[in-house]
Amino acid sequence: MSRTVYVNGEYLPEERATVSIFDRGFLFADAVYEVTSVLGGKLIDFDGHAARLDRSLGELGMSMPMEAEALRDVHHRLVAENGIEDGLIYLQVTRGAADRDFAFPEAGTAQTVVLFTQSKPGLADSPAAKMGLKVISIPDARWGRRDIKTVQLLYPSMGKMMAKAAGADDAWMVEDGHVTEGTSNNAYIVTGRKIVTRQLGQEILHGITRAAVLRMAREAQMEVEERSFTIEEAQAADEAFITSASSFVTPVVEIDGAKVGDGTPGKIAARLREIYLEESKRTAS
Amino acid sequence: MSRTVYVNGEYLPEERATVSIFDRGFLFADAVYEVTSVLGGKLIDFDGHAARLDRSLGELGMSMPMEAEALRDVHHRLVAENGIEDGLIYLQVTRGAADRDFAFPEAGTAQTVVLFTQSKPGLADSPAAKMGLKVISIPDARWGRRDIKTVQLLYPSMGKMMAKAAGADDAWMVEDGHVTEGTSNNAYIVTGRKIVTRQLGQEILHGITRAAVLRMAREAQMEVEERSFTIEEAQAADEAFITSASSFVTPVVEIDGAKVGDGTPGKIAARLREIYLEESKRTAS
Repeated sequence: MSRTVYVNGEYLPEERATVSIFDRGFLFADAVYEVTSVLGGKLIDFDGHAARLDRSLGELGMSMPMEAEALRDVHHRLVAENGIEDGLIYLQVTRGAADRDFAFPEAGTAQTVVLFTQSKPGLADSPAAKMGLKVISIPDARWGRRDIKTVQLLYPSMGKMMAKAAGADDAWMVEDGHVTEGTSNNAYIVTGRKIVTRQLGQEILHGITRAAVLRMAREAQMEVEERSFTIEEAQAADEAFITSASSFVTPVVEIDGAKVGDGTPGKIAARLREIYLEESKRTAS
Repeated sequence: MSRTVYVNGEYLPEERATVSIFDRGFLFADAVYEVTSVLGGKLIDFDGHAARLDRSLGELGMSMPMEAEALRDVHHRLVAENGIEDGLIYLQVTRGAADRDFAFPEAGTAQTVVLFTQSKPGLADSPAAKMGLKVISIPDARWGRRDIKTVQLLYPSMGKMMAKAAGADDAWMVEDGHVTEGTSNNAYIVTGRKIVTRQLGQEILHGITRAAVLRMAREAQMEVEERSFTIEEAQAADEAFITSASSFVTPVVEIDGAKVGDGTPGKIAARLREIYLEESKRTAS
């Protein structure tokens, strides 16, 4: 059965969902995106994603293509039309279509707005949450503004393939000797009961799930330290885990072939996942 | 009048030229491109562009979507259908359309191939060749594999806008204190009659025009040195210039507000442009 997707004001069957070959998202990767999780038919932290979208667009001299409330309505209609119980909604905004030129097109060029759903039954009960992930480390070869959520995702995509080729699930990227983040998630270790994750900056994505998890951890009286760490420190840590909108909190049990702790998912990661999912479902809309 | 463009085997009016919203070129910037110049209705150095396309695709685990000779035929047909005397032909190849996933789609997924023309009457007589360009320097914030000609062009695009905002024509990017290249061209200085340009590596694009110009310079008994240089050295040089498929050889007369030489186009740049255009037109096909 074909999905209904959203393209520039129209709700279309996915086979007919297209953009111009002159779209700057296609020619220049001049576009930003967001992915919002759906659990029980409701959106997880839509406000956080809308706020980050606004920020990403602003950093690139673009503005929101519509009010956040109107965007929320599009999300809800796609969830309803496609009968999404658990899954994801992908949203992309580009600078629009114009004859190819490195310089931005004239003000007033219509932005391109695309949304589609991905049904993921049992999203909150993935085997990875119980088994834990194996990761490898790779150099971080991405551009310098990873705090802007652009579609320049070729290197993370290559990183995922390098992980697969090495028999692992994902890759943690390393720059100047320290872990930046996973290919599509933020990275954490737990050492001496302290949760450690890299401080915000242009080097990493400002994860919406990261912000929520750190807030909840602090509310639960857990100690949190925002600083960078090395692969060696992570391998020697008690626990490791990742967070992202679609994986929530997921344990990491092996890094470059070395077991983290006893090689099984850690208790703090498990507890954080529980707290995060509970709270997120309660406030989902 | 609408252009005829090429999309996956079809020749279409540009208004109907689209790609799926699930195309990996649109979602992941998982695509490479080439731009070939047309002078007098003929292609400049098509073989060089076809060879680099093959290399870019290979570095990303993709292969040529068709034989180089078939690609050449598409170029020729578009030149003829659109009556291009002077201008450019843009070619983009993506990994194709598939449900969104960082991991590459299964082998056999059809690549997307798009070509379009841009008519540029008088391309070889641009005012910039006589006036020279003003450039500013900006940090090089691109990803690490600039030798692969991907569509991850957001930062070069931003760089062009920074230059415009500063009243300049283009930006030279600087990494670790040394110039890498311009936003869409290779950078050169002339010092003591020696032509200096950065050595090849993953840090810069392996310019097709760069290779041709260096070969012709050596054949004309000019001295060439391939090494990196600083902005300060460039400002103090006798001449500066850029090369690219669409600008050929174009002088640079000002860098970060400082005049290069006497602030007028240099003799060696002018001679190289002359030699390059003469030879290119002679061998165009």
